[in-house]
Amino acid sequence: MSDEAQTSRPARLRTAEEYRESLRDGRRVFYRGTAVEDVTTHSVFKHAVNHASLDYEMAHDEAYADLAVGPDGASRYFHVPQTGEDLLKRSALIEASTRAGKTLVLLIKEIGSDALLSLLAHSAQLGEPYASRIRAFYEHCRDGDLAVCVAQTDVKGDRALSPSEQPNPDAYLRIVGRRDDGIVVRGAKVHTSVSVNSNEMIVLPTRAMSEADADYAVAFAIPIDTPGLTLVASPYLSTHAKNDTEHPLSATRKMVETTTLFDDVFVPNERVFMEGRHELAGTLARGFVEFHRFTAISYKLPLVDALAGAGLLAARVNGLERAGHVRDKLSWLISYAETLRALAHHAAERCKIIDGVAVPDTLLVNIAKLQFAQGLHTAFMHVQDIAGGLLATYPAVEDLDHPVYGEALERYMESAGGVSGRDRLRVLNMISDLTTGDYGGYQAVLAIHAEGSIEAEKLTILAQYDRARATRYANWLAGLDSSQWPPS
Amino acid sequence: MSDEAQTSRPARLRTAEEYRESLRDGRRVFYRGTAVEDVTTHSVFKHAVNHASLDYEMAHDEAYADLAVGPDGASRYFHVPQTGEDLLKRSALIEASTRAGKTLVLLIKEIGSDALLSLLAHSAQLGEPYASRIRAFYEHCRDGDLAVCVAQTDVKGDRALSPSEQPNPDAYLRIVGRRDDGIVVRGAKVHTSVSVNSNEMIVLPTRAMSEADADYAVAFAIPIDTPGLTLVASPYLSTHAKNDTEHPLSATRKMVETTTLFDDVFVPNERVFMEGRHELAGTLARGFVEFHRFTAISYKLPLVDALAGAGLLAARVNGLERAGHVRDKLSWLISYAETLRALAHHAAERCKIIDGVAVPDTLLVNIAKLQFAQGLHTAFMHVQDIAGGLLATYPAVEDLDHPVYGEALERYMESAGGVSGRDRLRVLNMISDLTTGDYGGYQAVLAIHAEGSIEAEKLTILAQYDRARATRYANWLAGLDSSQWPPS
Amino acid sequence: MSDEAQTSRPARLRTAEEYRESLRDGRRVFYRGTAVEDVTTHSVFKHAVNHASLDYEMAHDEAYADLAVGPDGASRYFHVPQTGEDLLKRSALIEASTRAGKTLVLLIKEIGSDALLSLLAHSAQLGEPYASRIRAFYEHCRDGDLAVCVAQTDVKGDRALSPSEQPNPDAYLRIVGRRDDGIVVRGAKVHTSVSVNSNEMIVLPTRAMSEADADYAVAFAIPIDTPGLTLVASPYLSTHAKNDTEHPLSATRKMVETTTLFDDVFVPNERVFMEGRHELAGTLARGFVEFHRFTAISYKLPLVDALAGAGLLAARVNGLERAGHVRDKLSWLISYAETLRALAHHAAERCKIIDGVAVPDTLLVNIAKLQFAQGLHTAFMHVQDIAGGLLATYPAVEDLDHPVYGEALERYMESAGGVSGRDRLRVLNMISDLTTGDYGGYQAVLAIHAEGSIEAEKLTILAQYDRARATRYANWLAGLDSSQWPPS
Amino acid sequence: MSDEAQTSRPARLRTAEEYRESLRDGRRVFYRGTAVEDVTTHSVFKHAVNHASLDYEMAHDEAYADLAVGPDGASRYFHVPQTGEDLLKRSALIEASTRAGKTLVLLIKEIGSDALLSLLAHSAQLGEPYASRIRAFYEHCRDGDLAVCVAQTDVKGDRALSPSEQPNPDAYLRIVGRRDDGIVVRGAKVHTSVSVNSNEMIVLPTRAMSEADADYAVAFAIPIDTPGLTLVASPYLSTHAKNDTEHPLSATRKMVETTTLFDDVFVPNERVFMEGRHELAGTLARGFVEFHRFTAISYKLPLVDALAGAGLLAARVNGLERAGHVRDKLSWLISYAETLRALAHHAAERCKIIDGVAVPDTLLVNIAKLQFAQGLHTAFMHVQDIAGGLLATYPAVEDLDHPVYGEALERYMESAGGVSGRDRLRVLNMISDLTTGDYGGYQAVLAIHAEGSIEAEKLTILAQYDRARATRYANWLAGLDSSQWPPS
Repeated sequence: MSDEAQTSRPARLRTAEEYRESLRDGRRVFYRGTAVEDVTTHSVFKHAVNHASLDYEMAHDEAYADLAVGPDGASRYFHVPQTGEDLLKRSALIEASTRAGKTLVLLIKEIGSDALLSLLAHSAQLGEPYASRIRAFYEHCRDGDLAVCVAQTDVKGDRALSPSEQPNPDAYLRIVGRRDDGIVVRGAKVHTSVSVNSNEMIVLPTRAMSEADADYAVAFAIPIDTPGLTLVASPYLSTHAKNDTEHPLSATRKMVETTTLFDDVFVPNERVFMEGRHELAGTLARGFVEFHRFTAISYKLPLVDALAGAGLLAARVNGLERAGHVRDKLSWLISYAETLRALAHHAAERCKIIDGVAVPDTLLVNIAKLQFAQGLHTAFMHVQDIAGGLLATYPAVEDLDHPVYGEALERYMESAGGVSGRDRLRVLNMISDLTTGDYGGYQAVLAIHAEGSIEAEKLTILAQYDRARATRYANWLAGLDSSQWPPS
Repeated sequence: MSDEAQTSRPARLRTAEEYRESLRDGRRVFYRGTAVEDVTTHSVFKHAVNHASLDYEMAHDEAYADLAVGPDGASRYFHVPQTGEDLLKRSALIEASTRAGKTLVLLIKEIGSDALLSLLAHSAQLGEPYASRIRAFYEHCRDGDLAVCVAQTDVKGDRALSPSEQPNPDAYLRIVGRRDDGIVVRGAKVHTSVSVNSNEMIVLPTRAMSEADADYAVAFAIPIDTPGLTLVASPYLSTHAKNDTEHPLSATRKMVETTTLFDDVFVPNERVFMEGRHELAGTLARGFVEFHRFTAISYKLPLVDALAGAGLLAARVNGLERAGHVRDKLSWLISYAETLRALAHHAAERCKIIDGVAVPDTLLVNIAKLQFAQGLHTAFMHVQDIAGGLLATYPAVEDLDHPVYGEALERYMESAGGVSGRDRLRVLNMISDLTTGDYGGYQAVLAIHAEGSIEAEKLTILAQYDRARATRYANWLAGLDSSQWPPS
Repeated sequence: MSDEAQTSRPARLRTAEEYRESLRDGRRVFYRGTAVEDVTTHSVFKHAVNHASLDYEMAHDEAYADLAVGPDGASRYFHVPQTGEDLLKRSALIEASTRAGKTLVLLIKEIGSDALLSLLAHSAQLGEPYASRIRAFYEHCRDGDLAVCVAQTDVKGDRALSPSEQPNPDAYLRIVGRRDDGIVVRGAKVHTSVSVNSNEMIVLPTRAMSEADADYAVAFAIPIDTPGLTLVASPYLSTHAKNDTEHPLSATRKMVETTTLFDDVFVPNERVFMEGRHELAGTLARGFVEFHRFTAISYKLPLVDALAGAGLLAARVNGLERAGHVRDKLSWLISYAETLRALAHHAAERCKIIDGVAVPDTLLVNIAKLQFAQGLHTAFMHVQDIAGGLLATYPAVEDLDHPVYGEALERYMESAGGVSGRDRLRVLNMISDLTTGDYGGYQAVLAIHAEGSIEAEKLTILAQYDRARATRYANWLAGLDSSQWPPS
Repeated sequence: MSDEAQTSRPARLRTAEEYRESLRDGRRVFYRGTAVEDVTTHSVFKHAVNHASLDYEMAHDEAYADLAVGPDGASRYFHVPQTGEDLLKRSALIEASTRAGKTLVLLIKEIGSDALLSLLAHSAQLGEPYASRIRAFYEHCRDGDLAVCVAQTDVKGDRALSPSEQPNPDAYLRIVGRRDDGIVVRGAKVHTSVSVNSNEMIVLPTRAMSEADADYAVAFAIPIDTPGLTLVASPYLSTHAKNDTEHPLSATRKMVETTTLFDDVFVPNERVFMEGRHELAGTLARGFVEFHRFTAISYKLPLVDALAGAGLLAARVNGLERAGHVRDKLSWLISYAETLRALAHHAAERCKIIDGVAVPDTLLVNIAKLQFAQGLHTAFMHVQDIAGGLLATYPAVEDLDHPVYGEALERYMESAGGVSGRDRLRVLNMISDLTTGDYGGYQAVLAIHAEGSIEAEKLTILAQYDRARATRYANWLAGLDSSQWPPS
């Protein structure tokens, strides 16, 4: 990674308005069976666009510029980390932007750059002409300050069968045609986050493959308005009919997930990064996921902070700060949050430099992700426990405003530390939004399934651990190695 | 409890239509600040009414009549249990009706009869004229086949202070006036379930009280359309904008919770069951809760069954039935469900007969409730883990119906065991509705807070356990008791 | 099971002395490589014999006679349970004798009768002449009031291979010779409890087998002094150098485990219960284990009682009864203990009658065993937490008796509730013995591995659950079954 | 901390023999009521001395010299850490020496230097002449390369009462006389580790105190052979009758704990570091504990490594490496071990410099200690689960050596991967020693109680967390702070 390459031309930091404008193209997006003309004005998607726009706003805001802009003047997301310090800054940026996003990650730069960094790191393995294409595409995204999504997870059909063994040949995306100037692909990907408000989509394989699966071993990138590409948005986590008081997070915070259909989509050669190299499918799949898990443990930090803060605030408004069991639950929430932060930061500091790219410690990243994933439901339980039943029985803000009984209602709701009834309800509404409802559910499902499953993390932990060292020590303890000092 | 009393006049089992009709009175109900004219036709409340109506439908349906109708021809809910067998039948009825209610309890008979049974069991302590009033009110409810709610939880203000110590005198409901023909009460209660579609409301104290709190020590019953009573419904868990496919449970299953305001409500003497007896406030509070916890562990059974079934079904449609970690999670879900069932049934069988009323074993009831409450979030996690990320990224049913891409989408979604894409999505929609969103959140918050908190259950367990026996054994083991055989 | 058969001749209840005498035969027992002449006088084994003798003492003690003697005048252990009530009494006897045994099961009747009951229950499947041989052997044990052990677990070698696939043909016990009058067997069994102080040994297969494993499919019984049978006792959990004060449980409570070697042991035909029926190997293996797990959850009850009692007593002597976290841990210990009791009793009450034998509910038995096994280490942790560091740093009883500093030491150790320093140390010694050291470790390892592993219990739970019912309900909830009422 | 001070005279690194020699003085040590003439030759204590000697051997061994010797040529333990790097090296030394000690910490330098560092860090607060005395004593220990123990925990009597409120005035150590040249103290301390084989003992208060407790507020140091000082050793964790094969760890690894009696012990002025400053008692108590907890999370690392290694090795010898549930447990053990390591190292790197002393991040140290303490029993359970029942039923090494059946026994025990029966048993013996028996129990009790209790760690976590920051964020999320960007 030459410094020269990274500074070859003046960086462009787009404004939020430029970003919005860039989304008004021929993209084919459906919401509940209806075509969406303009994602920036659609009643639900506009929230997703506004949410993602924070990325561009932060880069132009003095408060965040240092974090959001990389050393070459481009968005820091596109800066190739070369040291632990670079990784810490990348993590800090992801944390800050998610914090500003009210615990919902922005993702339009995070996920794309995770894929780009992984592709760059595998360029040598992929060889030419692929390495150059990847480089060119990376510069295209960086210099254009683009929003980039990633489509990876296939629908999978019968999980016990490989792609080529499926009764349904379209259970995994595959190459169905080869032309001089490119390839034609068919299939579907699920869980494609932020696709409707991205500029580019990177497509990666989802698993290791055998020779028979060669047609399924493909990686490429296409603009969102590519003919044949259809984005079918999930209706889950709608902003519909929510107001800011009752749903202070999810009334306006929104990320769109699509089932992404490829109807014989043509991909020009210069955008094809891998084709037919079945032996590399697993490598590319895991490579991206590992980068992405570091992003994950960074963007989870505001969520765990919010849970600790919610517990503390709920304890205060309920007058429970001295209760023993509440203090016990608070110390759990704090340990949960700060263990994640320590592991994330330590993973950055203990990075390995591979081909000039700083890669966070894989073992620690996976342990961090696992401990987060396995604890979130318990964290929700503890916060709900401290907050009380009003989480699910609160009156509406319209009731507080009612001319007849509103004032009485507010007075009744008054809480211990002089907190007004109205403020108490806002705290409870926030906690309800954070831990119940479709927003809480979204975070819960993401915790388990996004960036690889809990079981995948366990396997990675087992694979990455220095088992030989541990076994040598156990052998020495058992007297099967009679050295004076233990083996290192 | 004489048998004669229970069969003194022919029982009336109302039809669902009669029940609906009975709700059209002068009740003062608000939803989001707007007065509700007729709860049976209101866009949200009609679902709550329909849901509750199942109780009346079941009593008239041959399939359930044996369970739903008691030995005296009245609703079994009003049958005073005299044996463990009676309790098992009561439990079975609650389970069956909740099962028919798609895991949401009906509650319009359960909660009221819990309070009535508790009041009957405390009649001797309350003495005359209260005992006779309770008896008369019980017969009124039973013979009228009425829907009865219970308002217990006060707003509480500063939880470290007793009612009379609160800066806000209205933090707990209290007697503000005494007349020859009755009393006048003021205050508010929260979490009043099914009040908008009940006929009667029983009001109970929420905690133990001291002499200074005498005005707060009050128990009574009033019809829902009593002047001065205002029901402010929570907007949480709305059926609004949900369809049966995406939300197969919560599109139509609904229970309304209100903040219940008492603006100088007059209660005639014959409806006052306790007044000023501060030393009985705690007894009445706990007495009801203990009956209600047995109801709780009965109505949780369909929920835990649904979770086990959801896990099994998800494993099947995902082709994961042979995966080791999935089998591990399934065995956890089954143990969770069946431990609850065994504890509930065993608590019934080990009941104590108090003044002719069979009271389920309090220790076991609380252990059952606690193990349910502490496990639900984990159960959700396991089911979500098996089900996969589509829980939060599924396409809409309108997408499956789309003339252009619908068919392809359905084909892509096809799963392992020949399950069609459409059916797979229905399974995932059900699990999403069950464990995420406001329905899952409602169940989660209820698990922790309804029928008393987790901490209250722990204290009851400690209080109910035969600590002397355990300590004697420990002493004997320590050699501090030198008997040959251990003490019993 | 005819009543006549069970009362065919007057029962003999042996005295403890008769039992001891019966152990003085030609048995071949080794302890640390040294032959043991007389197990009743050996410095370690005499404790095991005394411990087991409690069984005979109880039967002759008025306090226990009702429990210990069955309806036919024989030991109740040999009474074939025909009702849930019979099972409850069997459970109560096991609980009482283990309670008298200071939390260590006696086992000399429990395990043998578990095997006998299982063999009787499978007699029809085994057919003649095996059924008659089993019957005769059962009567022999019952009428002779014998101590009977069971050798089941093979050494197993490579667990991924079946018996006949093992590189080492002796990894599983097998038939190596067939004579007119019997068979000759060779191999080894591990974990054979109470063999050195039993009269008879029943040998059962340890797993399901295929046709190639036919020589390994064998079940029989032999007297302990059979030529060729060698019992190699484990040195683990020795009573050596322990005194009653420091180790109030393990100084005298002892169960011997052997590795049991069969050097071409001849088994006469009348003692062969199954040979070569590979298809029945798994059935017999599981059949015994299921009976034995019910024994297990019965004999664990005094242990969990002792843990709850230990926690309560430690809280008292440490002056910690009001501490919030201590109350939390105590309520955990109580719930742990009483859930096990409730599940055990409920499993008995929900028994199935199979060929006249009452079989406890398999699902509940396994859930009970699993919840016990998964919680014991946590129970130890909680008790140790309440008890304090003196568990591992206490002074010796000889120090308390020291003429110079003994009195001062005792005064320093004085605790809150007027408990003397000496008594406080006895409590701590008991808890130390119960939860640490080789006795605590023995209980911990048994919890996980005895009567089948944790994983085996999980598989049984999955197999025994009514999965079809749960799946039907989930389908109905998902709208895939459009019946008005849910399927049962 | 001037560099000059640290290098004022040539450092002396004692040899193991010099250390041994130094223990042969007039110290008054009792074991089971019998006076110990020479701790270096006593049948049990010699193991403790040998174990501690490793510290001196390592400093003279090339393999460890770099780690064991500080920049000034003295033992690194006495080097005052000034940077995170210093703390990492200190941690590495503690880890290496405990690793060499077979998972048992040496402690003779660790604990004393923890107290010295804490006293140095509090010198300014203590003022003169105390600061100079502390400095001089520190140099005495460093330059003499001394073994130093710490007596902190009082017996406490009724824990609900302060020292001066106790019925027994000697429940806490106190000043009973004041002379011109020093003070006289009386009382007892419990859990004094390594006292019998130390040169000096530092005495610290155990809790915060009020004015009435002034006589109990005292800190000082005395040589072990000070008149009036009696060390009553605990009999727990004896090496007695253990052989290296069965108990590869605890046959020779030993740490002695004493109840330490002060019978009117005279302490000369120059060794008194604090007297009567009740307001500083809590500060000194906590100050030491915080340093000591960092030592703790460093010396726990070989233990958690051993558990992970034990699990891996057991899986191999049992042929269970591919079993799903075993892989699950192994990934748990690895995550447990590596989370502790990451938190410990990160706490060092995130240290604060206080008066020139690098203090590890208190929040992270406590989280690390808590996660270790709460997980150890589960770690034991998982390792025992993988290892199998032979942990508690293994034959003795004398059996393997038996001329008649030894060879057969060894052949039977042969395991999957070509591991001989003898080696397999060594592995199982090691795991049995590590997780059961008095050694496993010692580690378990230490995990909970050493270096402060679990509850103390929770309180520290709550106190150290930046609660204001978390609460601000929660408020902003709730809309109670309307800033555009979230507060930092």
